[in-house]
Amino acid sequence: MTLVVQKFGGSSVADAESIRRVAQRIVDTHNEGKQVVVIVSAMGDTTDDLIDLANSVSTKPPAREMDVLLTAGERISMALLAMAVNELGVPAFAYTGQQAGLHTDSKYGKASIVGVVPERIARTVNDGGVAIIAGFQGVNRHDDVTTLGRGGSDTTAVAFAAALNADVCEIYSDVDGVFTADPRIVPSAHKLAALTFEETLEMAAHGAKILHLRAVEYARRFDVPLHVRSSFSNKEGTWIVDENSRRYLDGNNEAPIISGVSHDKSQAKITVKGVPDQPGAAARLFAVVAKAGVNIDMIVQNTPTNLEGVANISFTLPIADVDTAVAALEGAREEIGFEKIARDDGVGILSLVGAGMRSHPGVSVKLFEALQEVGVNIDMISTSEIRISVVMEQKLLDDAVRAVHTAFDLDAEGEAIVYGGTGR
Amino acid sequence: MTLVVQKFGGSSVADAESIRRVAQRIVDTHNEGKQVVVIVSAMGDTTDDLIDLANSVSTKPPAREMDVLLTAGERISMALLAMAVNELGVPAFAYTGQQAGLHTDSKYGKASIVGVVPERIARTVNDGGVAIIAGFQGVNRHDDVTTLGRGGSDTTAVAFAAALNADVCEIYSDVDGVFTADPRIVPSAHKLAALTFEETLEMAAHGAKILHLRAVEYARRFDVPLHVRSSFSNKEGTWIVDENSRRYLDGNNEAPIISGVSHDKSQAKITVKGVPDQPGAAARLFAVVAKAGVNIDMIVQNTPTNLEGVANISFTLPIADVDTAVAALEGAREEIGFEKIARDDGVGILSLVGAGMRSHPGVSVKLFEALQEVGVNIDMISTSEIRISVVMEQKLLDDAVRAVHTAFDLDAEGEAIVYGGTGR
Repeated sequence: MTLVVQKFGGSSVADAESIRRVAQRIVDTHNEGKQVVVIVSAMGDTTDDLIDLANSVSTKPPAREMDVLLTAGERISMALLAMAVNELGVPAFAYTGQQAGLHTDSKYGKASIVGVVPERIARTVNDGGVAIIAGFQGVNRHDDVTTLGRGGSDTTAVAFAAALNADVCEIYSDVDGVFTADPRIVPSAHKLAALTFEETLEMAAHGAKILHLRAVEYARRFDVPLHVRSSFSNKEGTWIVDENSRRYLDGNNEAPIISGVSHDKSQAKITVKGVPDQPGAAARLFAVVAKAGVNIDMIVQNTPTNLEGVANISFTLPIADVDTAVAALEGAREEIGFEKIARDDGVGILSLVGAGMRSHPGVSVKLFEALQEVGVNIDMISTSEIRISVVMEQKLLDDAVRAVHTAFDLDAEGEAIVYGGTGR
Repeated sequence: MTLVVQKFGGSSVADAESIRRVAQRIVDTHNEGKQVVVIVSAMGDTTDDLIDLANSVSTKPPAREMDVLLTAGERISMALLAMAVNELGVPAFAYTGQQAGLHTDSKYGKASIVGVVPERIARTVNDGGVAIIAGFQGVNRHDDVTTLGRGGSDTTAVAFAAALNADVCEIYSDVDGVFTADPRIVPSAHKLAALTFEETLEMAAHGAKILHLRAVEYARRFDVPLHVRSSFSNKEGTWIVDENSRRYLDGNNEAPIISGVSHDKSQAKITVKGVPDQPGAAARLFAVVAKAGVNIDMIVQNTPTNLEGVANISFTLPIADVDTAVAALEGAREEIGFEKIARDDGVGILSLVGAGMRSHPGVSVKLFEALQEVGVNIDMISTSEIRISVVMEQKLLDDAVRAVHTAFDLDAEGEAIVYGGTGR
């Protein structure tokens, strides 16, 4: 029997009407003869409202209590959704993360899953019922409630899909799927029929708001096919699968060269100038940054031609972390031995992602030509096997995304160009 | 070491400011060197809001899901209160009913407590922390959440006070304690320093909005001293204790004759006329009513002097149950063999309660005289050892309560008359 895990985000269950619509979709899937396990987020802005409440009584809410507070949101939505499904004549039962068997470590607020024991869920669907599970939450070995952090409901869904050996994990939201670029910037962007796990990871890590990175990692590890789709329509969304399945879905053996263009305006650049050009200097510098809890992304080291014995090191990092990083570096000026620090909050990062890139030389040339045409001066470059990212001036980023999207023939021309197959 | 259980109702934790005020009180008690266990209800109207949400997605919400939904309210308030106490520098930990060890049967919506295993709570207070427990909720043997029904937080508080052998169970609300009568009807009503469990049960069962009956029963069974007081002041409230403690609190050996006058406008009267005056007729009649799930209170049977072989049977019941009772009786007309049914929704019940009544004859005479003076025609009478209740026309009820209150010298005259001792 087919087993489907369906995950509905907060915008899909924002009010009673949305909940009833989602319930109808669940019942429709059930009536197709499939077993259905549902993961649900808190309604709309509930989580933010609860955080506001916490801040109104505490300057530094204890993490354990914060977690028990936040899980109230999913408790409400799971119960309401189970009621709405029952109302349509299909037995449905709501389960907290604890009841569903999601065990985590004790890192409140960002717990890691240590195991899923889905016996109660399996029993429910085997008995013909629908199981509705609160996303984002689990239980630690002290019998205390934990949360997986923002976006943790996606990870919950993938974890149960893996543990139950589900045929698919459907991730519902208010968008139709994954697009070749952000449609707000590129109106001609089109929905992708399929992506590989790797492409999705690269896009998500470089600004595309698709899925929680962790959920995609989890899906790749356990080979759980994901289907990202809209809760407002019955249209196929975007499948995220392994490379072989993706070829099958595309109906041919050639992966498209480029799947999409993502962009990121949330990063800044720090350049540390006059670092001694000797072994270990960069290691000392990044040890200081890492110790301050700052995650960096791209790194470029170069040796100015007009100076001997010193190098400049540039790296990108979240804008929110710049002050922390600068303070940490200034505090270790003696130890590292640099001249000065320059920060640039006005950078933008454009990333071109595609599994076919591996076997197609010339991609970077075409990219640079497209960027040149809109007057972009490339500041830094980083690449992976299936991605090329460039750091540039942020004010040219939107133009650059559009130009690159066009250069790689990603612009949709009506329905005809909609990419790939029709899913399975 | 003194162990205090403090229970705060929804109005005491209605918003962030109230929560901070309650937290301060908890911390003050803790800083007096006492161990503090707190039971908290959902904030303000949260429970009603959740019920509305349930009704917006379901015409008949499943009881199991309703319970998991409603418990979200206490989950929020317990977490916020724990945060607010931590903010004041005292370690506090929030526990759900399940975590705290409150085990119930599986009657969702009105579960009974089957056991309290307060090890985790005891450990918390022994380690110097404050334990904050969600009221109103427990867990059944299937690991599912249950609720104890409205007012169940009082029962939760008493259950933990009993299980932890607490010195006192303080019940906080927005009123100063128990009054000799409803101050909205009798402006000269005064706060009682002490009441026995039995008096409290009689008053609560006959219209006084003091405490959940079940909580008082529980307290009496395990001899848990209750202290009903306001969360808005530090004034002593009303102690509810056994008879010996009450004498001690009153500072003398004589229990006051009358403790208070309660009234009830939520009852109606049904009179079944022309019932065969033979053994078993009344039994058949009340079997029919009981089978319909209707709780009746007072019963009077009389034999009209002008008719032979038939009797009239009158009884009081909640107004909401009248239709059900009448339908059940009409359906059993043949079996019971009565002539007709009369209903009266316009009745009021006045009850005079006092443990000293036992040893003082003449109470009923004084009561009837007071009622006569305001023109009350007594319809039915019922008595217990410490209570006399009369059914009358509802529109005269308020006048009657005031007249009786005065006749038994219960009117306060400034501070001088405030009843009894100052507590312990």
